[in-house]
Amino acid sequence: MFKRMNEIMIEIPEVEKPDANAAAAVQELLGGKFGEMSTLNNYLFQSFNFRSKRQLKPFYDLIMSITAEELGHVELVSHAVNKCLNGSTKRKKPDQSPLEAVKDARLSYHFLAGAQGAMPFDSMGNPWTGAYVFNSGNLVEDLLHNFFLECGARTHKMKVYEMTDHPAARAVVGFLLVRGGVHVVAYAKALEVATGVNVTKLVPIPSLSNKLFTEAHKYEEKGVHTKLYTWSENDFSSIDQIWKGTHPEDGLPLEVIQGAPEGFPIPDAPAVEEEFAPGISAEDFKEIAKRLKMAGNISE
Amino acid sequence: MFKRMNEIMIEIPEVEKPDANAAAAVQELLGGKFGEMSTLNNYLFQSFNFRSKRQLKPFYDLIMSITAEELGHVELVSHAVNKCLNGSTKRKKPDQSPLEAVKDARLSYHFLAGAQGAMPFDSMGNPWTGAYVFNSGNLVEDLLHNFFLECGARTHKMKVYEMTDHPAARAVVGFLLVRGGVHVVAYAKALEVATGVNVTKLVPIPSLSNKLFTEAHKYEEKGVHTKLYTWSENDFSSIDQIWKGTHPEDGLPLEVIQGAPEGFPIPDAPAVEEEFAPGISAEDFKEIAKRLKMAGNISE
Amino acid sequence: MFKRMNEIMIEIPEVEKPDANAAAAVQELLGGKFGEMSTLNNYLFQSFNFRSKRQLKPFYDLIMSITAEELGHVELVSHAVNKCLNGSTKRKKPDQSPLEAVKDARLSYHFLAGAQGAMPFDSMGNPWTGAYVFNSGNLVEDLLHNFFLECGARTHKMKVYEMTDHPAARAVVGFLLVRGGVHVVAYAKALEVATGVNVTKLVPIPSLSNKLFTEAHKYEEKGVHTKLYTWSENDFSSIDQIWKGTHPEDGLPLEVIQGAPEGFPIPDAPAVEEEFAPGISAEDFKEIAKRLKMAGNISE
Amino acid sequence: MFKRMNEIMIEIPEVEKPDANAAAAVQELLGGKFGEMSTLNNYLFQSFNFRSKRQLKPFYDLIMSITAEELGHVELVSHAVNKCLNGSTKRKKPDQSPLEAVKDARLSYHFLAGAQGAMPFDSMGNPWTGAYVFNSGNLVEDLLHNFFLECGARTHKMKVYEMTDHPAARAVVGFLLVRGGVHVVAYAKALEVATGVNVTKLVPIPSLSNKLFTEAHKYEEKGVHTKLYTWSENDFSSIDQIWKGTHPEDGLPLEVIQGAPEGFPIPDAPAVEEEFAPGISAEDFKEIAKRLKMAGNISE
Amino acid sequence: MFKRMNEIMIEIPEVEKPDANAAAAVQELLGGKFGEMSTLNNYLFQSFNFRSKRQLKPFYDLIMSITAEELGHVELVSHAVNKCLNGSTKRKKPDQSPLEAVKDARLSYHFLAGAQGAMPFDSMGNPWTGAYVFNSGNLVEDLLHNFFLECGARTHKMKVYEMTDHPAARAVVGFLLVRGGVHVVAYAKALEVATGVNVTKLVPIPSLSNKLFTEAHKYEEKGVHTKLYTWSENDFSSIDQIWKGTHPEDGLPLEVIQGAPEGFPIPDAPAVEEEFAPGISAEDFKEIAKRLKMAGNISE
Amino acid sequence: MFKRMNEIMIEIPEVEKPDANAAAAVQELLGGKFGEMSTLNNYLFQSFNFRSKRQLKPFYDLIMSITAEELGHVELVSHAVNKCLNGSTKRKKPDQSPLEAVKDARLSYHFLAGAQGAMPFDSMGNPWTGAYVFNSGNLVEDLLHNFFLECGARTHKMKVYEMTDHPAARAVVGFLLVRGGVHVVAYAKALEVATGVNVTKLVPIPSLSNKLFTEAHKYEEKGVHTKLYTWSENDFSSIDQIWKGTHPEDGLPLEVIQGAPEGFPIPDAPAVEEEFAPGISAEDFKEIAKRLKMAGNISE
Repeated sequence: MFKRMNEIMIEIPEVEKPDANAAAAVQELLGGKFGEMSTLNNYLFQSFNFRSKRQLKPFYDLIMSITAEELGHVELVSHAVNKCLNGSTKRKKPDQSPLEAVKDARLSYHFLAGAQGAMPFDSMGNPWTGAYVFNSGNLVEDLLHNFFLECGARTHKMKVYEMTDHPAARAVVGFLLVRGGVHVVAYAKALEVATGVNVTKLVPIPSLSNKLFTEAHKYEEKGVHTKLYTWSENDFSSIDQIWKGTHPEDGLPLEVIQGAPEGFPIPDAPAVEEEFAPGISAEDFKEIAKRLKMAGNISE
Repeated sequence: MFKRMNEIMIEIPEVEKPDANAAAAVQELLGGKFGEMSTLNNYLFQSFNFRSKRQLKPFYDLIMSITAEELGHVELVSHAVNKCLNGSTKRKKPDQSPLEAVKDARLSYHFLAGAQGAMPFDSMGNPWTGAYVFNSGNLVEDLLHNFFLECGARTHKMKVYEMTDHPAARAVVGFLLVRGGVHVVAYAKALEVATGVNVTKLVPIPSLSNKLFTEAHKYEEKGVHTKLYTWSENDFSSIDQIWKGTHPEDGLPLEVIQGAPEGFPIPDAPAVEEEFAPGISAEDFKEIAKRLKMAGNISE
Repeated sequence: MFKRMNEIMIEIPEVEKPDANAAAAVQELLGGKFGEMSTLNNYLFQSFNFRSKRQLKPFYDLIMSITAEELGHVELVSHAVNKCLNGSTKRKKPDQSPLEAVKDARLSYHFLAGAQGAMPFDSMGNPWTGAYVFNSGNLVEDLLHNFFLECGARTHKMKVYEMTDHPAARAVVGFLLVRGGVHVVAYAKALEVATGVNVTKLVPIPSLSNKLFTEAHKYEEKGVHTKLYTWSENDFSSIDQIWKGTHPEDGLPLEVIQGAPEGFPIPDAPAVEEEFAPGISAEDFKEIAKRLKMAGNISE
Repeated sequence: MFKRMNEIMIEIPEVEKPDANAAAAVQELLGGKFGEMSTLNNYLFQSFNFRSKRQLKPFYDLIMSITAEELGHVELVSHAVNKCLNGSTKRKKPDQSPLEAVKDARLSYHFLAGAQGAMPFDSMGNPWTGAYVFNSGNLVEDLLHNFFLECGARTHKMKVYEMTDHPAARAVVGFLLVRGGVHVVAYAKALEVATGVNVTKLVPIPSLSNKLFTEAHKYEEKGVHTKLYTWSENDFSSIDQIWKGTHPEDGLPLEVIQGAPEGFPIPDAPAVEEEFAPGISAEDFKEIAKRLKMAGNISE
Repeated sequence: MFKRMNEIMIEIPEVEKPDANAAAAVQELLGGKFGEMSTLNNYLFQSFNFRSKRQLKPFYDLIMSITAEELGHVELVSHAVNKCLNGSTKRKKPDQSPLEAVKDARLSYHFLAGAQGAMPFDSMGNPWTGAYVFNSGNLVEDLLHNFFLECGARTHKMKVYEMTDHPAARAVVGFLLVRGGVHVVAYAKALEVATGVNVTKLVPIPSLSNKLFTEAHKYEEKGVHTKLYTWSENDFSSIDQIWKGTHPEDGLPLEVIQGAPEGFPIPDAPAVEEEFAPGISAEDFKEIAKRLKMAGNISE
Repeated sequence: MFKRMNEIMIEIPEVEKPDANAAAAVQELLGGKFGEMSTLNNYLFQSFNFRSKRQLKPFYDLIMSITAEELGHVELVSHAVNKCLNGSTKRKKPDQSPLEAVKDARLSYHFLAGAQGAMPFDSMGNPWTGAYVFNSGNLVEDLLHNFFLECGARTHKMKVYEMTDHPAARAVVGFLLVRGGVHVVAYAKALEVATGVNVTKLVPIPSLSNKLFTEAHKYEEKGVHTKLYTWSENDFSSIDQIWKGTHPEDGLPLEVIQGAPEGFPIPDAPAVEEEFAPGISAEDFKEIAKRLKMAGNISE
């Protein structure tokens, strides 16, 4: 089971700088083969199907807890997409073609299917698919997969960072470079524990350091790359048998934190009337408010 | 953000009654168009993209909190699949064809790609896809969609229940009929609040009552169908402005419960050597145990 | 069985205003999840699989006859796409790159696979798929689906209308807003007859009236939104047991018309030599004309 | 525009011989790459995009009119699927697993998604897709494609005929071998007219004659293979400039018939309560009957 | 079995004229339904499954040997894509957005998934799929398919040629028009041998001659269109029983050449640091060089 | 460029033991995500897009040459599929339902689309897709991917081996376990050279030795697992800077062999008349033989 918090992992800059194609690029990090939907669901299903979990508890705890963080990453990237889309169109009458401004945008689904919101597809609009989930059941093979997946995910983030300097995209991608980097190291260390081979020496792949990305660097300065959370008040603590020692890149000591990091308020999204979202008129709001306050059933 | 609990929503019967095609049928409820992956991701993305959430807080809270329950449903169905697969094959030497017993099973991915574990695909092995997510941004349209989606999901559950009497499948599907039924009513009530139209009168669709399904009936007797959880200690409480009055089928009073229901231990899954899962020998276990206990980095 | 008429539902403006990305947008209404291919095929297959049709004849007749109109909608949208593409390129020699003008167009299939003609794909070029067809067999559930589908289809039309003011696109989309609106109401009324719940009160979804779209308004002024056709000389007349009373939005009396509406000539499409379409030279035409006039087999 | 008739092209044997895997095989002829959905939609879109139709009227008329017949073929194959499914399950209480009888059926969608009805997918449950539509715009190339497509479609029919002797499947497939054979010859003749090359000499591909298939032979004896219909009272008559001379296999004179062939009543489909289809109780029927008879709006 | 040569079929102009959308267009010829991946794999699988190969040796040899040439075509088109992408971005620090220049490029996968290299997808980024492979096993039907496939492939090449005058694209596409034209004729002749029908008279489809495409014409002047290679030192020579007589367009005598044509050096591709490709620093190169020179295992 | 040999890598047992579901299982090794089509195309495209190949020649040579071997693997697996299908049906008249014997086979495409031949799809009939190709351009990341891919491919082979003891499947899969194992080690060694990390110590994944699979063991006894071929007479020799030292499992010295291994005759496939393959009658053969012997064009 999971609980939900009404919070998000970082504060995303409130800026109106509409850039539909930047939003499309960020979608790759959401619904692409190496996007957050993929990391989330790989670990989610691996956690369901984990065998011999008592004997392999630290590995099980690792997969269980990282899954929870990935949900927060999916959330974060989605809000980055939304911020890039914010302000793309202006309120006009239908005959005045309020959506013409985005007719040439690469990813039409944002405007025709949705109302300028993130969706589980990639930068070309191709939907995320369950075929991206790998789970051989073999511990070493699954860890190797996860290590590779996180390296691939990191590369994609580096490229999206380089493709747009939209403040919201940069803030989120920079942060995720750091958190994704934590997962790269976590799976490398897990592989080391499982096999004795010094896989962490491969890190980072690509060899460019996060520290060269200003928006990532600012989090590494605060040590964000050294902390792994259990995302549970009481469970999954044995991840400290894997997440231990020092960080392979800068040698800082690693730390496991029971629970979740402090969060930030989730951004508000304004109405977009030309997209009929949420499509509630002032008068409707009044009627709805009345019905919300009614005791008992609304209609009989 | 989300937290994870090391618990599952119900106790699943521990039974070894391998039935690969029953497992395949249950997969429809996991990765099918109307499976739990669909309800989960529809609400997840609708929650990210929700507009005017301050003015429409009870609706926002509804979508936010139901998402969390859906994660638990994905988990539950996955374990049902696993229980149906449990014992499908026997340990033998490779030359003795240990997997021959499942050569004719309908869903070969369970055995060739995975190690007899649930995956995000449907009863024919077609992967769940992000194209199943709908989010127009229009409040009434999204609620109408969700109401329809839950009715469809309910129908699929009824059919899977009728297709197999595997105890684990029955237990999970029976329970989910009830909880899914709660979501049907929740969206019907939300539509009523939003529009004033008595949509709950349409319930149940199909008109067959859950009470005719023994494994669902036993939960309705306990009132499980009258409770909606916030899945958060403090947030999302305003769902009580929607989840109020009485249940449209039996007239019992509805109740919102802050937090999550009590959970049960997640089932253990045994090693399946003929699938190399987890593929750790007795000797490996010893080496791993040593490395887990080491202080600091494993290798230098 | 179906018969074909050499006519189309409205007159489409003859204008050369090439706009490849407008054509791409209109494709969403053709091959998208909520496009005309979807409404067509949903009703087509529901009509094939309809159970207890004698007892439920008015519902059966409704599904049977609407299917026929949808074929005309698929046709209409296709011609709108074609008109938007018309004139995109100029005749030049191959070495002069006659297709360079459309190299940056969003939907390359229009130019590389086809010869600037409509195809059953959506605004991103993803093909329409049979996975968009829903048919539970349960009458209420299927009607609910159809009602939702038509609301979604309407929303997409509103957005495409707002995205381009191309005269052909506007003319077709405006008209289809009205006819699609008829189907929204028809399924709402059918749901009312089947369940007694006043679903028509939900209409319109989104709440913006068609009358705010000039190209739709002009048809509503003529009462086009009050008429439902049987699309058959003799059959399907019992739809008047569902399509009765008044229109929920403006209270005008509803009317069933036996047969089909009057049609208009189908637009001609000029040769596009740089696309080799139809690729018949003046000399070829002469030879072909001769062979067409021959009695009996052409070659022995 | 199209009109619909409440008739079907042949009488399908009323037999209860449930065979779910035969139904799955027949689906290949419906939603497979070479199924009736493909022939239908290829010609439908080619007809929309036809260029220089005035100069090439007989070819245009051919594509226009054959499209209409293909709709009837889609209908026919769908009913064949339904007849193969008919009786697959028995009415029982949910706890008695009424659908267990079909748990091992190859195509689970028939039972879990639908209520034992035909759907636009192929023999493996993969949905028909718009990617199967070809339309280069080049007359000769499109005719060559259509000729090839019809040969491929014929081959698939021959194989399905050989795979099951279910009376309904045999009756429909036998008939469609003949009518599909007509389209093979029609496109061969069209190619001859367009190019002067004696393509009809290639017929039949594969070289096995329809006459060796008893259920096809019986229609050829009646000359069904020599007739091409305009599927319109007044239009498309110029197809007689292509469909002329003699049949390449048996030398019988070819004939164009204005209009459609005589049809047969469309089979009834019984309720399947264990699939909730149509899910209308005796009491519901009464209520519905009342509402159908009401004058004016059902609810206010 | 296959052998590989470190050579490519033609010399591709070394030019830096980055044009991401031209690259996208060329992708259609690589991974599109009518791209080189399709011709390659159709013949590859037809060759594996060929029945009665002793009695039909010249046909078998034809399919076997053409497959090998298609591998060279896949290679050639890939390098054309690469040349169009060459120079798309400039080396900058991550914060300076080195990939911003391609943010609006139609095909984001080139930049986010890959490092500006060709991939097996089409001009819209949709992946090549095995569903494009046809193999009925019937000799005449497969030859007819291949003839049609090559005509379609030719048409696509003509359109891409017309869409961009990028020197590398033109050089490759011009050459492939000629070599693809050879395959058109080869399958036409094979059909003639198999059936006696003069299919070659249909050539060329579309009727526009290759000679109107300067970059194709220059190869035809050298007679490239008259030669068919065995792509083997000793085998497949009986293709000369099919590839004989004269070319249907210009009447030149046809010639079979044992072996492969002379090749050219494969172009070098420079490092693209902003894409981390190959991502090897100067220092890394030194370390690698050392390890390459070591005798025996690198690490113990 | 590639050359083709009329030979195959091993001798496949000539046995008639039809097992359609075994054939379906083997398809996973052909067109599955971890099948030979995937290894082939990953290396093929990586070789096209290789950057800085002069400085990284041994790596380039490795990718170039392994690609060629993978073509031979695709061929081998395809013939294994064919052998499993061999004899599935018997020659009968169409009315006698010659294909009824395979109506319940899991993979209907083998019989309805093809004529009992291998196709590029997986064990569920889902087509291989270009989305399975990974090429980041980063040398270390691509090598890591390839290492992981080969481990996954090995696991799949082990499972298919365990699923069927069909002699042809066993022979091929056993051999490929060995050759695939060579590629596992090759990429591990390449990673070691590139990074200095002792990745080969991870081998084998899963930890079960090939030597426990009798059909693999027999090849390892001959040292087949110690040899890497250049698949070229003259090129790609620098792979000996990577393939050097000893085998990580048994310590045998590794060896590079210039050229290709000795091959074996490709199996004949008999006609299957009930599938119309090749569909050439005795009389047709005579006519064809005549036309093959004609000098010059067949028809004028």
